[in-house]
Amino acid sequence: MKKPLVVQKYGGTSVGSLERIRCVAKRIEQTKKTGVQVVVVVSAMAGETDKLVKMAQEICDNPERREMDLLLSSGERVSSALLTMALQSQGIPALSMTGRQIGLQTDSVHTRARIKQIDAKRAKQALKNNNVLVVAGFQGINEQGDVTTLGRGGSDTSAVALAVALGAAKCEIYTDVDGVFTADPRMVPKAKKLDMVSYDEMLEMASLGAKVLQIRCVEFAHKFKMPLVVKSSYIEGSQGTLISKEDSNMEQPLVSGIMYDKNQAKITLKEVPDQPGIAANIFEPIAAAGLSVDMIIQNISAEGHTDLSFTLGREELDEAMVIMRKVAKKIRAGNVSSDSKISKISIVGAGMRSHSGVAARIFKSLSKEKINILMISTSEIKVSCIIEQKHTKAAVNVLHKAFKLDNKPSITKKTIKKPKPKIKKR
Amino acid sequence: MKKPLVVQKYGGTSVGSLERIRCVAKRIEQTKKTGVQVVVVVSAMAGETDKLVKMAQEICDNPERREMDLLLSSGERVSSALLTMALQSQGIPALSMTGRQIGLQTDSVHTRARIKQIDAKRAKQALKNNNVLVVAGFQGINEQGDVTTLGRGGSDTSAVALAVALGAAKCEIYTDVDGVFTADPRMVPKAKKLDMVSYDEMLEMASLGAKVLQIRCVEFAHKFKMPLVVKSSYIEGSQGTLISKEDSNMEQPLVSGIMYDKNQAKITLKEVPDQPGIAANIFEPIAAAGLSVDMIIQNISAEGHTDLSFTLGREELDEAMVIMRKVAKKIRAGNVSSDSKISKISIVGAGMRSHSGVAARIFKSLSKEKINILMISTSEIKVSCIIEQKHTKAAVNVLHKAFKLDNKPSITKKTIKKPKPKIKKR
Repeated sequence: MKKPLVVQKYGGTSVGSLERIRCVAKRIEQTKKTGVQVVVVVSAMAGETDKLVKMAQEICDNPERREMDLLLSSGERVSSALLTMALQSQGIPALSMTGRQIGLQTDSVHTRARIKQIDAKRAKQALKNNNVLVVAGFQGINEQGDVTTLGRGGSDTSAVALAVALGAAKCEIYTDVDGVFTADPRMVPKAKKLDMVSYDEMLEMASLGAKVLQIRCVEFAHKFKMPLVVKSSYIEGSQGTLISKEDSNMEQPLVSGIMYDKNQAKITLKEVPDQPGIAANIFEPIAAAGLSVDMIIQNISAEGHTDLSFTLGREELDEAMVIMRKVAKKIRAGNVSSDSKISKISIVGAGMRSHSGVAARIFKSLSKEKINILMISTSEIKVSCIIEQKHTKAAVNVLHKAFKLDNKPSITKKTIKKPKPKIKKR
Repeated sequence: MKKPLVVQKYGGTSVGSLERIRCVAKRIEQTKKTGVQVVVVVSAMAGETDKLVKMAQEICDNPERREMDLLLSSGERVSSALLTMALQSQGIPALSMTGRQIGLQTDSVHTRARIKQIDAKRAKQALKNNNVLVVAGFQGINEQGDVTTLGRGGSDTSAVALAVALGAAKCEIYTDVDGVFTADPRMVPKAKKLDMVSYDEMLEMASLGAKVLQIRCVEFAHKFKMPLVVKSSYIEGSQGTLISKEDSNMEQPLVSGIMYDKNQAKITLKEVPDQPGIAANIFEPIAAAGLSVDMIIQNISAEGHTDLSFTLGREELDEAMVIMRKVAKKIRAGNVSSDSKISKISIVGAGMRSHSGVAARIFKSLSKEKINILMISTSEIKVSCIIEQKHTKAAVNVLHKAFKLDNKPSITKKTIKKPKPKIKKR
């Protein structure tokens, strides 16, 4: 019978030193002993990519993306070679694989290429020979044979794509946290690790600022129904969080997590003439500049004028303000102002689909704490509110309690049976 | 008319910092302004390869060569990307090329692969588009598509091979010395830079320890008659040394250079039975172990016995001694002893072909200084002597003088016309 296959991805801190690389090799050995085949995807050693980016910026104001890709892809090649050596020195047959050797073909959008297909012929052959494959993450090649990279968090995407191409049973993402939490533990001391979340929830969480997984990686896993496990490479026996499709037999908790994002800004346009087509006049130039508007509200005001506010990422504020000042002039609107002292608080839960009253509970909880909601938006499994930034911590904590996440029972306490040390007979 | 092409190779110290990389980019710009096309081959930034080797040794006692190649090849990729960016930031169209992209195909002997062929189709196309190509040296791919490296000094070999494949007019090797000298300037203060040496002489010099060029690179240039120029990347207007075929119209100097090599050891086998086939019994196991014997002498002695001495590289002494002790037992020879306090002094010159008396002059000069010659060997353009190591400096200096190298007129004093600064009319 063919052995089941597991793809494991180790991030930059997990392979950040030779000592850490040896720990990873030990973990792979343990996994292999459970009777599975292992394919490993590695990031560059922590700090290496930043060092290379800094050199590039020093030598050239605006380096060409093709050259950036050649430069940045070197870090993952180094860590895959080193981890392969560490495995070999433990007597485990292992083979390094670059993006090209693993057959990861992408489009030609350098520094943020998208995967087109994986030709896993060589990988499959190497697995037949009982090798652990150690794949340089984050990179592929385009049609011309030039090196491309997949953008931030690309190694996670490499791992999931490879798991799909090789028909793996699951894809494990090893990182420096123990899984997905109900809230940021630095903000909410009572935050609990989740044992399971659905792809939909994880997608909302990732797009709302949960840094544990990149959106693209979750989208990929969702599309191909590949079970994802996020766990710690530091904690022995970490069970992590399973991200998979919703189990219809299981009652969904109402809310799975509370997210916050302080990196938000709001732009307000006063006295906008209330005419058809005016919204297009405002938002088309914003979209044309590649800026993403998040929430929009419009206050109906008297005398054929209205005030309009929208939010977007803080780093896009300056560019958006330049555009909005031009727009305001053109459409004969009033003053343009901005506010970057805001936060977005979001409540995510697949259980919302079948429950109402989530928004009401949010309003009630926040108003009790005298926290004003400036804007609000909802989706099927999410409610987001904009509030003043100074209230962020209080808001997250009060909502965490209100949705009974503080008391969420954890089922991660299962003890893992460690293999008993064998006693040698003398 | 097609522009002539120059291949330039820059070593590790020449691209050892971002500042040095910018200097190299300036030099390439100047070369391009003279109306030629430029292909550049780069080594890894100084220190990078050593750093990677150290990491590999720490993580694995005996790393597999395939993995070493993936690891080590990353350094050249980084420097080629950075130099390409530096050129682009000066407004010069440039394109980085990995070993694979340049089509450098090798055999599968990892860490010391040999070039099989270069498929320069893509390079030629890129040159047509007026690009400077910045090639990662030292690396190629084998038939399987695995990364291979060419061994120590491999970037020089890459450069010459590429010059041949692209039909370059010449191949310039930029390094931290100004060219090839009549002797090591640290040992002989009056050593002079040579303006020209023949391939044969350079081959002898390289095999005798001149570190400026690797033997393989010179062999390659010799085979394809590619003119090689060794020059400094630090000295503005350096003319360096031209290595090319002997010019039959030019009278060759008797001797071009004096080399020394302290890294030698001598093994002596006493009372060897003087029978046919005995030499094979001695040297076959040495050859089978991959050790290279250099000089051999045999003293004819009385009573059917003889003493036999031979030299080899110091680093091979221990292994050779183990073998020789076994051999001595087997052939019933006497004592085996070794001496590593010796030096090899060599005199190289294409002029020896048509002159006799070189050996005599050597004997006379050394005996005047009371320096004993322990062993001697000659070839068409070389005489080598083994002496006691303590006499190295004296021997090199006395021979340098005896062969009139001290007084060799230099023709490198040509002043280079620098472009006059243009005065702007106001």
